[in-house]
Amino acid sequence: LTTFEALYVPAPIREAVSDKAWLEAMLEAERALGPDEDIFRPEEYDIAALCEQGQMDASPVVPLVRALRERAPDAHGPATSQDILDTASMLVSKRTRELVLTELDGVAAACAGLAETYRSTPMIARTLLQQAVPATFGLKAAGWLVAVVDARRRLAAVTLPVQLGGPGGTLDPADTARFAAAVGLVEPVVPWHVHRRPVAELAAALDAAAAACGKIGLDVVLLAQTEVDEVSESGGGGSSSMPHKHNPASAVLARACARLVHANAGLLTSGDYEHERAAGAWQAEWPALSAALAYAGGAAAAARRSLEGLQVNAARMEESVAGEDTGSAEALVDRALSHYREQA
Amino acid sequence: LTTFEALYVPAPIREAVSDKAWLEAMLEAERALGPDEDIFRPEEYDIAALCEQGQMDASPVVPLVRALRERAPDAHGPATSQDILDTASMLVSKRTRELVLTELDGVAAACAGLAETYRSTPMIARTLLQQAVPATFGLKAAGWLVAVVDARRRLAAVTLPVQLGGPGGTLDPADTARFAAAVGLVEPVVPWHVHRRPVAELAAALDAAAAACGKIGLDVVLLAQTEVDEVSESGGGGSSSMPHKHNPASAVLARACARLVHANAGLLTSGDYEHERAAGAWQAEWPALSAALAYAGGAAAAARRSLEGLQVNAARMEESVAGEDTGSAEALVDRALSHYREQA
Amino acid sequence: LTTFEALYVPAPIREAVSDKAWLEAMLEAERALGPDEDIFRPEEYDIAALCEQGQMDASPVVPLVRALRERAPDAHGPATSQDILDTASMLVSKRTRELVLTELDGVAAACAGLAETYRSTPMIARTLLQQAVPATFGLKAAGWLVAVVDARRRLAAVTLPVQLGGPGGTLDPADTARFAAAVGLVEPVVPWHVHRRPVAELAAALDAAAAACGKIGLDVVLLAQTEVDEVSESGGGGSSSMPHKHNPASAVLARACARLVHANAGLLTSGDYEHERAAGAWQAEWPALSAALAYAGGAAAAARRSLEGLQVNAARMEESVAGEDTGSAEALVDRALSHYREQA
Amino acid sequence: LTTFEALYVPAPIREAVSDKAWLEAMLEAERALGPDEDIFRPEEYDIAALCEQGQMDASPVVPLVRALRERAPDAHGPATSQDILDTASMLVSKRTRELVLTELDGVAAACAGLAETYRSTPMIARTLLQQAVPATFGLKAAGWLVAVVDARRRLAAVTLPVQLGGPGGTLDPADTARFAAAVGLVEPVVPWHVHRRPVAELAAALDAAAAACGKIGLDVVLLAQTEVDEVSESGGGGSSSMPHKHNPASAVLARACARLVHANAGLLTSGDYEHERAAGAWQAEWPALSAALAYAGGAAAAARRSLEGLQVNAARMEESVAGEDTGSAEALVDRALSHYREQA
Repeated sequence: LTTFEALYVPAPIREAVSDKAWLEAMLEAERALGPDEDIFRPEEYDIAALCEQGQMDASPVVPLVRALRERAPDAHGPATSQDILDTASMLVSKRTRELVLTELDGVAAACAGLAETYRSTPMIARTLLQQAVPATFGLKAAGWLVAVVDARRRLAAVTLPVQLGGPGGTLDPADTARFAAAVGLVEPVVPWHVHRRPVAELAAALDAAAAACGKIGLDVVLLAQTEVDEVSESGGGGSSSMPHKHNPASAVLARACARLVHANAGLLTSGDYEHERAAGAWQAEWPALSAALAYAGGAAAAARRSLEGLQVNAARMEESVAGEDTGSAEALVDRALSHYREQA
Repeated sequence: LTTFEALYVPAPIREAVSDKAWLEAMLEAERALGPDEDIFRPEEYDIAALCEQGQMDASPVVPLVRALRERAPDAHGPATSQDILDTASMLVSKRTRELVLTELDGVAAACAGLAETYRSTPMIARTLLQQAVPATFGLKAAGWLVAVVDARRRLAAVTLPVQLGGPGGTLDPADTARFAAAVGLVEPVVPWHVHRRPVAELAAALDAAAAACGKIGLDVVLLAQTEVDEVSESGGGGSSSMPHKHNPASAVLARACARLVHANAGLLTSGDYEHERAAGAWQAEWPALSAALAYAGGAAAAARRSLEGLQVNAARMEESVAGEDTGSAEALVDRALSHYREQA
Repeated sequence: LTTFEALYVPAPIREAVSDKAWLEAMLEAERALGPDEDIFRPEEYDIAALCEQGQMDASPVVPLVRALRERAPDAHGPATSQDILDTASMLVSKRTRELVLTELDGVAAACAGLAETYRSTPMIARTLLQQAVPATFGLKAAGWLVAVVDARRRLAAVTLPVQLGGPGGTLDPADTARFAAAVGLVEPVVPWHVHRRPVAELAAALDAAAAACGKIGLDVVLLAQTEVDEVSESGGGGSSSMPHKHNPASAVLARACARLVHANAGLLTSGDYEHERAAGAWQAEWPALSAALAYAGGAAAAARRSLEGLQVNAARMEESVAGEDTGSAEALVDRALSHYREQA
Repeated sequence: LTTFEALYVPAPIREAVSDKAWLEAMLEAERALGPDEDIFRPEEYDIAALCEQGQMDASPVVPLVRALRERAPDAHGPATSQDILDTASMLVSKRTRELVLTELDGVAAACAGLAETYRSTPMIARTLLQQAVPATFGLKAAGWLVAVVDARRRLAAVTLPVQLGGPGGTLDPADTARFAAAVGLVEPVVPWHVHRRPVAELAAALDAAAAACGKIGLDVVLLAQTEVDEVSESGGGGSSSMPHKHNPASAVLARACARLVHANAGLLTSGDYEHERAAGAWQAEWPALSAALAYAGGAAAAARRSLEGLQVNAARMEESVAGEDTGSAEALVDRALSHYREQA
């Protein structure tokens, strides 16, 4: 359904949020709760068909459980379908987050490299897009770096809990603890069926990470303007009608992805969750969560491509500021680099 | 990428916004602008590969044009890649809108049927979810009906123009007029590369249509509560742990889809579109537009399923209001039905 | 509560959405429904106190009605408090819309003036912020013009109905018709207590109008960059630390206002409206509606200030494009001007 | 400008985000950077006039600095206007956050009280608004409690830094450290003029806190339905037309406030911040930040009012579940209470 997904999102991240990955995660949850039988192999189930059947249940898990119980009547145990889906969503989130964090590490490393290399390279600071006073290109990269480092840390810190409450949220917390250990997720204080902190906090952290990448994209786009010409993307594409052009395509895609994350994060941080299971807000989460994860990865991957191959026109930068004092720019670059190294 | 799409969206609508449909629409635009040669068959192009290659151009059209020009050097003519993508987006929108309108017609017909059948059936009106004064169930259905009819009309009225400006937006309007006629879209006053009225207006209309369906879903969910028990969905599903339950699954999915439309419409109605081609906001539109179209269709289809099989417990409704005056409820039902018939 | 409102919004528009204006509109609605007595003078009521008392009712109208009935027991008639508030919101909207439309007219006139004056002035078109091919500055202004004209027409076309349904929405439509005539609003088909087309459509139209102004702001900011230097704002401000700077302050404020409108419009176009009166979504509308109206006016006023005093550096524009063909730019300017004159 | 603010927001919080409070905070920042003279008294400056004058600068600080420098030429030091406004915004945020946290403490205490009192009181759990299996009312309150406790902790943990970079962000970090100590804010790694982590993280935390309160409001509204009748608000208001009604007014306002926070938080977490000072996104923050703070306080205050006076109909609750097993509900209540006490 998502249009042109290979344009935005690296292949491993696309796979990590695919329906196949969700199905595997659901079966992994069922396996940890079910009988010791060989009925949890993903290739035996057709997720598209389960979704189609699931329209009558507003969930693909209900038909999945039916299919499991045909094979083993005691499958699924005392869980409710939301236990399976929420646990699966956290498993998908955990794995995809790893991939997003790796892309963010790449962005941070690229920022750090630029900050070091251009620590003292004079560049005019621009306020309201007007030339203002001298700074250095290293300082600009240092600002990106701190933002990415902090966003990465925040994303990595989001707690991803297992879900196991049964329909009333009353299952024994000792069982939840065992389930958490079995699938490798955190044990929650109480079930979070209708208290969506994990989803909302993850969404906000993905949004912040994508925004940090989008800011890089914005600055690259502005610095790459024909009239400014201080940087260009090495792989920068042409256009269908003007092959000579050198577009900052990766910076553009970083910005596009950041917008897509923000739209989906907005859904994931609102939502009215009625009583013990919501009638609409919960069922809207799954596509939005996949999209937020995937486009956050896309934003990071695009910012990384943009910066890793960035061609810096230092001579051009210096033209606007030659001979002027750049204040404490270098000391601030060093602070940023220390901050980065402390996190690593 | 979109998780569980068959759960939310009817198959024909999924196909109408698929990458295959986008590719066909792009080739249709290219064909209308290109040489009279047999190079525009979709099966010759791999949209996923074009997207992957398009990362260096922030667009799948640039590699597509390269491929076309290998076959016929004068392909693509004076167009810019945005001309092709915007025209394709409007073709996809036009075709998908037809399917969404058909679903909305189904919703309206179901509302009208309920309004007529239960025109005089007493039902308590509820304000702030407290029982207030008597009305009729027909009046509630009449309110849904007017909302759906008005939203349908608004959606049908959105003008979907062709795009043809070339990179500077300076192509001859006479060519644009011919192009519009060839592909069956409207001729714009001037190119709209960075003035996104068509997209924003379509998105707002889809949002309004989905909201009208979401409101139906909300009322059905509330009326179907165990304690209220005034309606139930005939196909209403059970749950994995409580097979006896009778969930208003379609109403729930209508609400979920409405939320997904709103999130994507928010992206499509904002956006900073720089100069003559935006560097980020435009490139974020394609997945959001497909999603807004698809989930609007999903919202309508779900509301329709919910209402077409709705089981109405008139005796239960009357319990709260027996013997009381329902004011002008019947006259208002008649006004709503007239309004509906005038639109048809 | 709104921070720095005089920075963003012209004084008449601030007054038109003030609590005083809302109180007057509520009393105007009550007067049209109440006894022919002298109890509807705004100076007799303290809206802040009514709001404070209204916390126990989630509405300032309930205490207002109590105060009115102390003076005349038959005040308020068969109306429900939402009838008064919704009607007041439409009266406030109608009056503020007039002011916003006037500002938009000023923006359109300024765009038209620029389009005419610079119809043939060569300017490079920029795609993805890269210089592309020649166009004219008149064509850029023509694009702004069409967007503003279309947004203005859409805003002016939004139907603003009266509300009169009583608590169950069952009041006689003949009374509604009389009420509509008395206060100068449109008669709805049925009560719209929980079907918020008028609010949502107005919000979407305000959003579109503000976006059209924000696009102007964005282009002015980009053209005013030190390195581009093709336009500057005549009144453009300095900065606290760099008095020599010449900031495009009005363009900046137009963009800020557009963002504020979008945020509030998003609230006004979503919303779950339960049964016959919503328990939360409705009560959130009032501040958001005032804000959407006010900041839309602010966006238009700022775009107008920006353009009315715009200093155009035509010589600089021509530097990038001298001697090149600008295609059909002039013909397109003429189409835009005709479109504008047809609307006037 | 904000309509009916006394309806939503407690007076101390309204004052804490008022223009007066912003002016005081700006002067406090200027005092810490300026000469040791008696020119920083708020009563000498008219914030409304400064805002009006500030239109030409897109900021109220520029005219404020002019006024200060008339009194003392060395006022303002090497700061840029954004240093003052950002520092003021953090001071306003810090003080208002304290008030919001106090309200959240009140909500948590009320939840804890209910969880303890009704630890074993049977109540039916409801999924998709259908009666499902037995739980206890204490468990429902325990779920609210954990959500509020976690949201409170997250809000309290947001780091609020001083801003001092000068126009290029190059001021000596030692000066920033001194400034931070003087005004009682945290020292940032580097200036954050265009890296808005503090604002975005605060906004997301306010959104989460308001959402936790909105969830309480939703459940109270649903439980207070005439047909369910398991709780009612003691102060619950009537209506203008039906004085006998008993509306859950505080729960309704909690939901309304949560929606208003979410809309403003969406603005504060997006935003394109160009180069070293943004031309639009930054200037949109001030009203949105005040609104997010104020309505978060309003959501908490309303949820607190709702719960502190909640009348619980335990007999009614037991009707649906008498004699059935409530699983581990009591153990889960105890876990939630322990979690609460650990935080205190």
